[in-house]
Amino acid sequence: MSDWALLARVQAFMVDYAACLDEERFDDWVALFDPAVCTYEVLSRENRDLGLPAPIMGCYSHGMVCDRVAMLVKGVLTYRRNHLLRQVSNVRVLQGAAGSQAQAVSVRAALVVYQSDPEGVSSLYMVARYEAQLADVGGKLLIRRMAVVVDSFGIDTMLAVPL
Amino acid sequence: MSDWALLARVQAFMVDYAACLDEERFDDWVALFDPAVCTYEVLSRENRDLGLPAPIMGCYSHGMVCDRVAMLVKGVLTYRRNHLLRQVSNVRVLQGAAGSQAQAVSVRAALVVYQSDPEGVSSLYMVARYEAQLADVGGKLLIRRMAVVVDSFGIDTMLAVPL
Amino acid sequence: MSDWALLARVQAFMVDYAACLDEERFDDWVALFDPAVCTYEVLSRENRDLGLPAPIMGCYSHGMVCDRVAMLVKGVLTYRRNHLLRQVSNVRVLQGAAGSQAQAVSVRAALVVYQSDPEGVSSLYMVARYEAQLADVGGKLLIRRMAVVVDSFGIDTMLAVPL
Repeated sequence: MSDWALLARVQAFMVDYAACLDEERFDDWVALFDPAVCTYEVLSRENRDLGLPAPIMGCYSHGMVCDRVAMLVKGVLTYRRNHLLRQVSNVRVLQGAAGSQAQAVSVRAALVVYQSDPEGVSSLYMVARYEAQLADVGGKLLIRRMAVVVDSFGIDTMLAVPL
Repeated sequence: MSDWALLARVQAFMVDYAACLDEERFDDWVALFDPAVCTYEVLSRENRDLGLPAPIMGCYSHGMVCDRVAMLVKGVLTYRRNHLLRQVSNVRVLQGAAGSQAQAVSVRAALVVYQSDPEGVSSLYMVARYEAQLADVGGKLLIRRMAVVVDSFGIDTMLAVPL
Repeated sequence: MSDWALLARVQAFMVDYAACLDEERFDDWVALFDPAVCTYEVLSRENRDLGLPAPIMGCYSHGMVCDRVAMLVKGVLTYRRNHLLRQVSNVRVLQGAAGSQAQAVSVRAALVVYQSDPEGVSSLYMVARYEAQLADVGGKLLIRRMAVVVDSFGIDTMLAVPL
């Protein structure tokens, strides 16, 4: 597969990732993670840059990723129903960063999230970056590691849904 | 044509669509629609999600699309001359959604519009999504259906120019 | 090289350009310019549209581009350390605009910059467009001309870092 085909494939994957969350298809979002081994973390840039390991939230197995959204799917959780749009851009595939796993790729992308309230007023919600490790498992890209490093950690509303 | 080539072609089409409007080349914008059959609608997400069919505005033939911008081209209409930037991202080609038309493709994309006033102050203007049906007519992509579903329907200024 | 491969290559170049600046790898940014001949300008849309040639800032040789960031690399300059995210989108390769240089391409792209302050509060910083001339020099894309046309020229903070 050429570099350009791989980049196009990764871009499509990240756009699908955002669509699963925007459209609240949380089961589809969970299916993007590798059931064998995966992590999902939201980190503040401040902590990351200072080398402080504590994430804002973290899931360290596929079961934890499933649990993360189970309450959302079941409607147990009550939260303000703002509509979110996750704008994914600046997708990059890092060269030679995959280590010994020949089939894994390191990915970077920019994320800007807008919220629109029920009255139709839109505003900037969050600025962040994706740092992901994707693996080709049986011809399908799956997430081994997804870190969302947020520039906007002065979050004024509960981080109810994943990024 | 491979999936990636089709996606690249659709992305380029949507970027051209935005450029026509940003640069106020309204005749070029009209030429992106299929003269044989096309619709253009702006819908609020609220109405769409409730199944209410009334759009904020709608054009149901190529002539209506031409009429939509005729007054803008002729300079008849007076409106505040804010400069708009339409940021298109998250372009997706839906699989198997084209129905019986082998040459048609269903497209989704995110739209974020920024306005800049004559004093050089920029702000978020609108958050929306494109839901389009494109057809390959003689080797050229043309719009059969373009629905702009706006999250921001609390629009404080007249919707003078198309989205 | 097909049109789609060229577009993909240009998109990757522009994303790399943004990453160099976002990550403050200024030496890498300088290396994206053609040492033989290059210009870098920031222009207000107002001046550009009126045909007034004075840029907000301009560098007319590779040495001037290097000087532009030398003080940033050396840490001589004191400025508020907001974190910037440069969102590049709507990348277009213009056809037939390269003139007599067979290997040069004219590129347009949209730029939206977000700033996040040390307290983690994010806001829209700037809306602009790239107008670039890239040349293939020994198999590598390099910048011959980069013009950043800013819609937001009511800049309330010093333009410390390049766009």
